Amino acid sequence: MKTIPLLEPLADDLERVEHRLRQPIHPEHPQLTAVLHHLLGSGGKRLRPALALLAGRFYPADTDKVVSLAASVEMLHTATLVHDDLVDGALLRRGSPTLNASWSPGATVLAGDYFFARAAALATETGRVRVMEIFANTLMIICSGELRQIFDRRAVPCLTSDEDRRLAVDRYDQRIEAKTASLFAAATEAAAVLSSASEAEIGALRDYGRLLGMGFQIADDVLDFQGDAAMLGKPVAGDLREGIVTLPALYYLCAHPDDERVAAVVCGREADDRRVREVVAAIQASGATEQAMARAREFIARSQAALSVLPDSQPRAILHALAEYSVAREH
Amino acid sequence: MKTIPLLEPLADDLERVEHRLRQPIHPEHPQLTAVLHHLLGSGGKRLRPALALLAGRFYPADTDKVVSLAASVEMLHTATLVHDDLVDGALLRRGSPTLNASWSPGATVLAGDYFFARAAALATETGRVRVMEIFANTLMIICSGELRQIFDRRAVPCLTSDEDRRLAVDRYDQRIEAKTASLFAAATEAAAVLSSASEAEIGALRDYGRLLGMGFQIADDVLDFQGDAAMLGKPVAGDLREGIVTLPALYYLCAHPDDERVAAVVCGREADDRRVREVVAAIQASGATEQAMARAREFIARSQAALSVLPDSQPRAILHALAEYSVAREH
Repeated sequence: MKTIPLLEPLADDLERVEHRLRQPIHPEHPQLTAVLHHLLGSGGKRLRPALALLAGRFYPADTDKVVSLAASVEMLHTATLVHDDLVDGALLRRGSPTLNASWSPGATVLAGDYFFARAAALATETGRVRVMEIFANTLMIICSGELRQIFDRRAVPCLTSDEDRRLAVDRYDQRIEAKTASLFAAATEAAAVLSSASEAEIGALRDYGRLLGMGFQIADDVLDFQGDAAMLGKPVAGDLREGIVTLPALYYLCAHPDDERVAAVVCGREADDRRVREVVAAIQASGATEQAMARAREFIARSQAALSVLPDSQPRAILHALAEYSVAREH
Repeated sequence: MKTIPLLEPLADDLERVEHRLRQPIHPEHPQLTAVLHHLLGSGGKRLRPALALLAGRFYPADTDKVVSLAASVEMLHTATLVHDDLVDGALLRRGSPTLNASWSPGATVLAGDYFFARAAALATETGRVRVMEIFANTLMIICSGELRQIFDRRAVPCLTSDEDRRLAVDRYDQRIEAKTASLFAAATEAAAVLSSASEAEIGALRDYGRLLGMGFQIADDVLDFQGDAAMLGKPVAGDLREGIVTLPALYYLCAHPDDERVAAVVCGREADDRRVREVVAAIQASGATEQAMARAREFIARSQAALSVLPDSQPRAILHALAEYSVAREH
């Protein structure tokens, strides 16, 4: 597991989360345990568990329960990735083969379902119904957002008026809130619930998670336009190729509503890699990625401001720095 | 909704379950609400909710919570059917088109996920962590069983010794326990938890549900060999065609280990409908279906015996009769 230096003070607890995540599955399913370990091994920096651990540190809490919650959040994230990769037909994630690249669609669906169930079981280990409510609601929000993305796919927003442009950005915001920010918010809110934080503080930590998630996802969408394929482990402008208009493309379209090349890529009429790179270059040159990053940083600043009601402490300092990190990362 | 006459005393509560199940989904998803209503409309007789309602009636309980549990169990069942039909590539269920018959695989996966989340949310409405634990564990058992079925598919058990035959039946039992009996048991156990039943009574109701589920599933597997396609809404011997050996075929193979026609169908080498019907006729003529039904009735008798520790009452009488009904039904 790659670690983020500023999370060093969490090392022991993150180790416990890792242990909880990697508990062997039903003995009859060595394949499933192997798959889970592969998925966990190729998956990110445990940002979501770290958020839960930090949000649970402001007041005394049963660390074992916060660790279960942190593992539950990461397991839920893993389950959604398994199904997302299947839905998208993605064969690589961060340069590693996806489950659907080697398993049948049926087995991939059921493995994802199993990980959802496991995430629910980890959440019940917190012993708190309110945490389970947050868990169930978050999963509904995530699935609902993914479904909306499927129904909206290959649609190019019409951006002829200011009102159109505002609505298109609103729609984008709703999508990334469902896809990413909702789980960040669930991690921080539920951890706060497990400590003896006040309702105002629980709300502040929820807001922090949500705003951080928005900034994080916008930065991720910008990276999709900037990185090279080898670094990202997937093709540049993968979203656009999949028919999904993210914020940089949206800002570009606002400024160049008549450039039909973007629509051609989004609608799948133009799959030639050279032509896609031409569109990407146009978007980069237009300043749309910088404009999107500026908006990401706004969300990050708001997430940091949300922390002000919490006591000045080590977890607050780390959450503050983590927000900064989340828009500065290079994956 | 078709009702079972002996469930008449539950009519009001079943109506409330129905209402809970059909609550509109997120306003942005009229498609998903429509799909849910279609699935609920074409789905069975609400046996699982009835089991929960009855198991919750032995002692005072908050009816609203038992209704939420009953709805949760049916929603979980619906979600598993959505994914199962996708995994199996089934286009019809009870004569109605499956979701994957009209939606893309991706949208079907996500709709099933949404229904899982909704089931979890309904379970949290019971306000009991123990119910959530039962819910999460049951979902793990169901997914684990379905995965095992995928890995075992198109395998014909070797039945040359008594030990082989015992193991093959054990394996079949494990599969139907995971697939069907675990959810029946969850419904009765969780409902008993919501009333003030003693641990002994909770255990007895769990046993009742599990044993009933075993008998019910064996009867279902026998019906698959007996009905005609129009009545079942799917082809005769669908399991065999899918490469799954159920109890009647297993009993036939025990008596005729050298009949290679069964293996030819199971392994997908023989897809010709006339040849499949020939195998079905051989299995029917052999008495294997009667032998399987006799075993189903054994489970039913044991489920009824499990009720003896519970007070003699209307719910007990109905549960007793429902067990009888579950192996006498014609779908």
